[in-house]
Amino acid sequence: MQYPQRILGIDPGLNVTGYGVLEAAGGRLRLCEAGVVRGKGRDSLAKRLAEIHDGVRDVIASLAPEVLALEELYSHYARPRTAILMGHARGVICLAAAHAGIPVVSYSATQIKRILTGSGRAPKSQMQRAIRLELGLSAIPEPPDVADALAIALCHYHLKGKPCPPAP
Amino acid sequence: MQYPQRILGIDPGLNVTGYGVLEAAGGRLRLCEAGVVRGKGRDSLAKRLAEIHDGVRDVIASLAPEVLALEELYSHYARPRTAILMGHARGVICLAAAHAGIPVVSYSATQIKRILTGSGRAPKSQMQRAIRLELGLSAIPEPPDVADALAIALCHYHLKGKPCPPAP
Repeated sequence: MQYPQRILGIDPGLNVTGYGVLEAAGGRLRLCEAGVVRGKGRDSLAKRLAEIHDGVRDVIASLAPEVLALEELYSHYARPRTAILMGHARGVICLAAAHAGIPVVSYSATQIKRILTGSGRAPKSQMQRAIRLELGLSAIPEPPDVADALAIALCHYHLKGKPCPPAP
Repeated sequence: MQYPQRILGIDPGLNVTGYGVLEAAGGRLRLCEAGVVRGKGRDSLAKRLAEIHDGVRDVIASLAPEVLALEELYSHYARPRTAILMGHARGVICLAAAHAGIPVVSYSATQIKRILTGSGRAPKSQMQRAIRLELGLSAIPEPPDVADALAIALCHYHLKGKPCPPAP
């Protein structure tokens, strides 16, 4: 029997951080757990970062993933304020992985869309459908942050850190 | 006797993070300790963040500052890649403060320059001179990251979270 591999996908956000853990074993893929970690909106930035970090640290401790997959760093140039704040959240998430001794891998938004739908510019509805079908779910995972986290984990499952195949 | 107040100023960077701790007591100000925390250049982003976080956590634990002062978030729009990476480092530094239960305050680059030199556009040499004189140091603190960290701590000493007085 092949040892199961667990992949943690995370979609960072200062208000809602989505996560999803997939387990791949014997050519089969199943959803272990998915959910959100919330930073309380009224708290200071530092306290919200602590809530995000501690939540992700607890998910890693309880589900023991072998790898943490994130969306790539530089996807949000158009909104620098958001991108810098996201950088803070992403930083404490990477830290939780480093302290747990698991590697962090990242994929561009285009890679994630292309590997799941065949198109790097797939609309959200098409992405949600692909996630639902591939994981055999009866409904689209909610909130969208969870679906995004699962998409990132699925992308890693397919690519395992390899570069994305060129677009057809 | 007035209880001394310790201010930790930090200038975050993925390679070199400068820090400086000032102690204010009875109207006198002295430099307790200053130095750098280094992220090893060959390590992954996550490991470098762990080195920065753990170094800052240790500084807070050993010197027990009451407050952590940083430069404001949005000073680097012109270089979004750098700003997002700095956001990661700043995130794990804020986290160390939150876990230690001390508040994080921040000041704009213009505020820091203005309070130390009278001009929000003071060149680096003028800033270094102001730091050296105000702390009674025989030389300019090196590397520049340490001088920048001390400038941020000095700014907090003068402003204590109050808005900067308007430019003359």
